Amino acid sequence: MEKKTTSYKTDKVIGSLKEAIIKSGLSDGMTISFHHHFRNGDAVVNQVMKEIAELGIRNLTLAASSLIDVHEPLIEHIRNGVIAKIETSGVRGRLAEAISQGLMQEPVVFRSHGNRAAAIESGELKIDVAFLGVPSSDCRGNANGFSWDESSELLCGSIGYAMVDARHAAKTLLLTPQLAPYPNTPAAITEDEVDAVVLVDSIGDPKGIVSGATRYTKNPKELLMAEQTAEVIEAAGILQEGFSMQMGTGGASLATARFIRNKMIEKGISADFALGGITQQIVQMHEEGLIQKILDVQSFDLGSARSVRDNRFHTVISASQYASPSQKGAAVNALDVVILSALEIDTEFNVNVLTGSDGILRGAIGGHPDTAAGAKCAIIVAPLTRGRIPTVVRHVDTVVTEGKTIDVLVTERGIAVNPGRPDLKEKLEKAGLPVKTIEELRQMAEQIVGCPKPIEKTDRIVGLVLNRQGEILDRVYQIKEEKA
Amino acid sequence: MEKKTTSYKTDKVIGSLKEAIIKSGLSDGMTISFHHHFRNGDAVVNQVMKEIAELGIRNLTLAASSLIDVHEPLIEHIRNGVIAKIETSGVRGRLAEAISQGLMQEPVVFRSHGNRAAAIESGELKIDVAFLGVPSSDCRGNANGFSWDESSELLCGSIGYAMVDARHAAKTLLLTPQLAPYPNTPAAITEDEVDAVVLVDSIGDPKGIVSGATRYTKNPKELLMAEQTAEVIEAAGILQEGFSMQMGTGGASLATARFIRNKMIEKGISADFALGGITQQIVQMHEEGLIQKILDVQSFDLGSARSVRDNRFHTVISASQYASPSQKGAAVNALDVVILSALEIDTEFNVNVLTGSDGILRGAIGGHPDTAAGAKCAIIVAPLTRGRIPTVVRHVDTVVTEGKTIDVLVTERGIAVNPGRPDLKEKLEKAGLPVKTIEELRQMAEQIVGCPKPIEKTDRIVGLVLNRQGEILDRVYQIKEEKA
Repeated sequence: MEKKTTSYKTDKVIGSLKEAIIKSGLSDGMTISFHHHFRNGDAVVNQVMKEIAELGIRNLTLAASSLIDVHEPLIEHIRNGVIAKIETSGVRGRLAEAISQGLMQEPVVFRSHGNRAAAIESGELKIDVAFLGVPSSDCRGNANGFSWDESSELLCGSIGYAMVDARHAAKTLLLTPQLAPYPNTPAAITEDEVDAVVLVDSIGDPKGIVSGATRYTKNPKELLMAEQTAEVIEAAGILQEGFSMQMGTGGASLATARFIRNKMIEKGISADFALGGITQQIVQMHEEGLIQKILDVQSFDLGSARSVRDNRFHTVISASQYASPSQKGAAVNALDVVILSALEIDTEFNVNVLTGSDGILRGAIGGHPDTAAGAKCAIIVAPLTRGRIPTVVRHVDTVVTEGKTIDVLVTERGIAVNPGRPDLKEKLEKAGLPVKTIEELRQMAEQIVGCPKPIEKTDRIVGLVLNRQGEILDRVYQIKEEKA
Repeated sequence: MEKKTTSYKTDKVIGSLKEAIIKSGLSDGMTISFHHHFRNGDAVVNQVMKEIAELGIRNLTLAASSLIDVHEPLIEHIRNGVIAKIETSGVRGRLAEAISQGLMQEPVVFRSHGNRAAAIESGELKIDVAFLGVPSSDCRGNANGFSWDESSELLCGSIGYAMVDARHAAKTLLLTPQLAPYPNTPAAITEDEVDAVVLVDSIGDPKGIVSGATRYTKNPKELLMAEQTAEVIEAAGILQEGFSMQMGTGGASLATARFIRNKMIEKGISADFALGGITQQIVQMHEEGLIQKILDVQSFDLGSARSVRDNRFHTVISASQYASPSQKGAAVNALDVVILSALEIDTEFNVNVLTGSDGILRGAIGGHPDTAAGAKCAIIVAPLTRGRIPTVVRHVDTVVTEGKTIDVLVTERGIAVNPGRPDLKEKLEKAGLPVKTIEELRQMAEQIVGCPKPIEKTDRIVGLVLNRQGEILDRVYQIKEEKA
């Protein structure tokens, strides 16, 4: 007889992170991966890297769906040779500054969410061990970004980025604070994808999910732009029964939902679906019957995270289903309109969401190029200037999203339409909207803040920006240190 | 500008099956796949093969999750060289007879559901084009075995076998009679896995799902055995709060749920989950609160098919999550008890569910070896004899499930416990159950119907039975034609 005698309750469960890392077979030179659904509340990356460093494993490639301020301790692990390469959608805070100043020998590879999913699926980005924090998992690895036990406060909602890693990593380790009853179904990650379930004290603080980029804005300028964006969408003829939409991060972009809601109620129409990073405002519209379905790759606040559990038609989707550029297509291709932000946009409509006016890394590609390429209408909403810094410029510091995929720019001082969309320009003018050329907007910005001094850089490459197909689209250079 | 101009509503939709086959690139020598969720009501296999034959494509490997009586037209396609090889879980009817009589040059490869999933995932079984009939799909391939529009009567419930094909086939084609609104979410198969959605008149008749093997029995002998099986389960100490169970096909096996239900109500306990092929009886127990969760790889009747749509914790799972023998494990490993049927069982507890007393193919491996290996207690329920045919024999004609994975045999004339489980034997005897040795049961069968004449066979192999790991476990030989 070869019957199993061990209890299934403990089959894959490991009580110590160190033991789990050893059992995974992780060794020098391998690739590890993480997700960022807890955003700045994440406790997994630092915890895992500390254990790995203590085990003396070196020369790793860290492939994260994104890196945020909280990941500053990675600086030490890079200095100590534990991490040799980074692949990510973005990087912020002190880590970003250090990388811009030449911390790493190898350039950081920046991928969009869609390109990352496709690269993992094709094997171009091969993950040896995925370390995925999950708010609930049973003893065999059926896991969700929330708990079916409604009393649990630990949640991040969708775990759409993690789903791709779980499915394709050679070893998939889930980290969770306590076990849910088996089977923890329905589940976003299923047991047949999971090698081990590791019990840890904490995977993150849900309060950290809402950060600057995903806040509920009350800024009057942002609200003005959001209102104007809703008017552009209406004038473009997009607000028809059954339309679809996505709002990217950024106060004005996310706030556009509020103004669209009013227009939808006026017109008596509903949307077939909302896609993307999802906020409480989208959930409210879903619960009001204004949006039939929600496809959620990432929950931007706790209200949307709870809705994933409570609303059956608020569905978690993988990064692949969200944005993969593969032949089979993805949900971004079904978008009527996406509203996106920009750090800079140039007169060719190329957009930079990655480097600041000082040339320092301070953002993330996210799904920006994926949704811009997929949506029938891609709208950038951004103030003409920020403090003494112009947003509309001759040439963006870093091209993240190609201008040919952008249709409209909305600023607080006017609207510019891509010359490739004369039909759209005509509609907006007919609706009495303040349409200008993008060159006019650039000049207005220059009149306000002057012509910015060129950023001083070295010729050393610290970052490679890939396009959706994985080809090099642009390069980020090390900045010249300012003399104190 | 490279914006999409075509409507997403028609991106992947193809109105003609012939056109879809041509576009898929299907050519001589490739492997195509099908699922059998409509069981004997399936209209996809015959429809697709007719078109393929008309296109003159030849020498294909047909990899189906199972083949049933309705697939008799395949005989002609085999004769004509359109199909050269078959991989399947089982085969029935005239096609099965013809194969047993030497129809094919190459032996049919028989895999369990778990082994099939693992072989597809590992690339050992490489599918070039999957043709998957789905009761609902939107224009991009988000698909389910039911429709979210509750007025639709076209449903098969779970599409768990198809999920593995959809995920791993080089080309995945969905066949459906009409498009659901996009996005058809939540979905068992998602758009990032699908190449084309083909509109066809019919994919099958839901009435065909219930066939002999999945009927609701009223046969007194089967009910007696079902009752006895429930008593074995109780005596074995399995009926504890939080236990788990699966009933395989076969009247007595499926009927055991009814008797377990009564005992659970008496004891005031509930089960954590039921797994497998799911019937209306399991759904009833779920809706009564007796079973917390249902994991459904295949819906055995329309009641369970509807429940997949209506009950949130009745979850569709893939064949991989169900039964994969891979390192990562599967739900079968979490089973406390599985109740299975047998055409034959020998004194080593080896089970045959594939070939009849005449040596002719007439069954399917299904999840039999997967659940037997995974469950803590695997019970075979079968009558001692069927007509003039003994069930308990010296040597089964074909070993499908190895005796070392079987714990108990329940017949209407006594119960035998595997000698490897003396603990279990003691418990059943203590409960006053009629425990006998399996040799005693064999002799009783022989006394009733005599010693069967050995089946006359040739030395030509018509079928290879693989074990869960994909190694050859047994061979099926061509029978000698009877002289009329």
